[in-house]
Amino acid sequence: MSAVNRQVRLARRPVGEVRDEDWEQVVEPVGVPGPGQFLGRTRYVSLDPAMRGWLDDRPSYLPPVGIGEVMRAGSVVEVVASEHPEFRPGDHVVGAFGVQDYVVSDGKGALRVDPSLAPLSTYLGALGMPGMTAYFGLLEVGALKEGETVVVSGAAGAVGTMVGQIARVKGCRVVGIAGGAEKCALLTGELGFDAAIDYRSEDVRKALRTHAPDGIDVYFDNVGGAILDAALTRLAMRARVVVCGAISQYNNETAVQGPSNYLSLLVRRARMEGFVVFDYARRYTEASREIAGWIADGRIRVKEHVVEGTVGDFPATLQMLFRGENTGKLVLRLT
Amino acid sequence: MSAVNRQVRLARRPVGEVRDEDWEQVVEPVGVPGPGQFLGRTRYVSLDPAMRGWLDDRPSYLPPVGIGEVMRAGSVVEVVASEHPEFRPGDHVVGAFGVQDYVVSDGKGALRVDPSLAPLSTYLGALGMPGMTAYFGLLEVGALKEGETVVVSGAAGAVGTMVGQIARVKGCRVVGIAGGAEKCALLTGELGFDAAIDYRSEDVRKALRTHAPDGIDVYFDNVGGAILDAALTRLAMRARVVVCGAISQYNNETAVQGPSNYLSLLVRRARMEGFVVFDYARRYTEASREIAGWIADGRIRVKEHVVEGTVGDFPATLQMLFRGENTGKLVLRLT
Repeated sequence: MSAVNRQVRLARRPVGEVRDEDWEQVVEPVGVPGPGQFLGRTRYVSLDPAMRGWLDDRPSYLPPVGIGEVMRAGSVVEVVASEHPEFRPGDHVVGAFGVQDYVVSDGKGALRVDPSLAPLSTYLGALGMPGMTAYFGLLEVGALKEGETVVVSGAAGAVGTMVGQIARVKGCRVVGIAGGAEKCALLTGELGFDAAIDYRSEDVRKALRTHAPDGIDVYFDNVGGAILDAALTRLAMRARVVVCGAISQYNNETAVQGPSNYLSLLVRRARMEGFVVFDYARRYTEASREIAGWIADGRIRVKEHVVEGTVGDFPATLQMLFRGENTGKLVLRLT
Repeated sequence: MSAVNRQVRLARRPVGEVRDEDWEQVVEPVGVPGPGQFLGRTRYVSLDPAMRGWLDDRPSYLPPVGIGEVMRAGSVVEVVASEHPEFRPGDHVVGAFGVQDYVVSDGKGALRVDPSLAPLSTYLGALGMPGMTAYFGLLEVGALKEGETVVVSGAAGAVGTMVGQIARVKGCRVVGIAGGAEKCALLTGELGFDAAIDYRSEDVRKALRTHAPDGIDVYFDNVGGAILDAALTRLAMRARVVVCGAISQYNNETAVQGPSNYLSLLVRRARMEGFVVFDYARRYTEASREIAGWIADGRIRVKEHVVEGTVGDFPATLQMLFRGENTGKLVLRLT
């Protein structure tokens, strides 16, 4: 056990792409848990596209990470000492513990997880926020019905792989949009998507005409930009566009590219709706139980991209998301 | 009674602003009604922003007006001859009879109206499509609830004046956005809006902060462009953005300006939804009865902008809409 707590803190607000200089690597003494607290050692750190938004100083669904603060991140920690009645040494706990080796926590918002039921990393992916996001975004916001056509962008990512597979479980036709032949092969091969569109080599609009000939009933958008615009041209009547994210726009130094084709919402009597997964927190247990069942019976395959390293590898690993270098849920395993 | 039927036909597809050369003025013999038909003489022609969209050759909620076809328009005609069992000479009928002096109709989609209950022009405005659009857009698509804050753009137009007044009837705070001091004075004076924003002289975003301090619950958009973007920055949680039109964009020669701030839908868990009023056709009677009641008891005031002229004045009158020169419902009264 190292005697120090390495942390990644936000040094300054990035402009456009996040640079090394935007981070500060700090070494602190390991904290000591007081009454009602536990000390956790980080095992896995989650990397999420949403993190880019947390770095900007503008009103959003969470306050921005402050300059000088430890970077916010979901992680799985192992309890190494505890003065908390509900968490004992050896327990594994998931929570927003930040990018650091150790955390002292009062257990608020933390959840004990069972490593014998699923690999620890899965609690940051299929059974964590991305899984919840896919589940509630598709079924609640998207109001998915059996037999509909679902298109998901960022399809090979943490959320996208789950959206597509849940839609398949629900008896829908699923088309994924992803970057590169390898990712597309994964979608239609291993993950059972009906079709995949490689936005790097294909005309997405034309490909959607081929693969969603009757129009798109639910478009689950993780990317924004030109792909959102292409999808808007192919909506079926009363389609639902689920706004989950816009990774293509997060590093913009200029204004976000608004969807030029938004008037198709009028023509197709469609809606575009945003959501934040935290609003469904009271139903996470129900959702993760259902997803765990689908994983258990083989109807959903968990895709994870595990990078091994130290806390100091967080900045470089985060970049992978914006370069499309991950397939499935990206996590940093602290070694 | 003139012995000829003057018509305005589409000569070619306009690019950007509609030009005189895009129209063709034709004189034809007056038609003779056959069995099951009537002959109507046009009294009032409706002018609507949506007309610009009907001139473009692209998929929409109605087929485009064909080159060489009489321009599509709602109008009120007086029956002058009839071989139709349900329409008698002297009856007044509203329908999509086109920009022409006379029409031969089989009565399909036509509705007899009573000039003793409301001026004929009102059947093209408050009791016609604009009234229906405001009513169903606000109450059904916008799912308006008492006590909410409503913002409407194009507020001094045919739909906008009705949206604001219906929202007031429903016990809501209403802010109108319009161009020019005169229109704004009308909104807060005669029409009872709580506040008005003059987009020509005010910073709309800042003014919305003042007049909708708790955020916008329902934003009813008739204009698109920069004003839509400003409204998106001020949405309340679970806000509804009703996409009714985008008059600021209809004459674009380049792509429509998409709403750059659409990601506020995510942050505010809000939705943006389009609709086409025709979908509510079966409920027009119910809605116009309710609106007529509000007019009768003085809670809603009918604003009409009547231009007197001939069929040949249609092209110039249509331009007024895109220059913001009308206040309330714009109609051409044939003299």
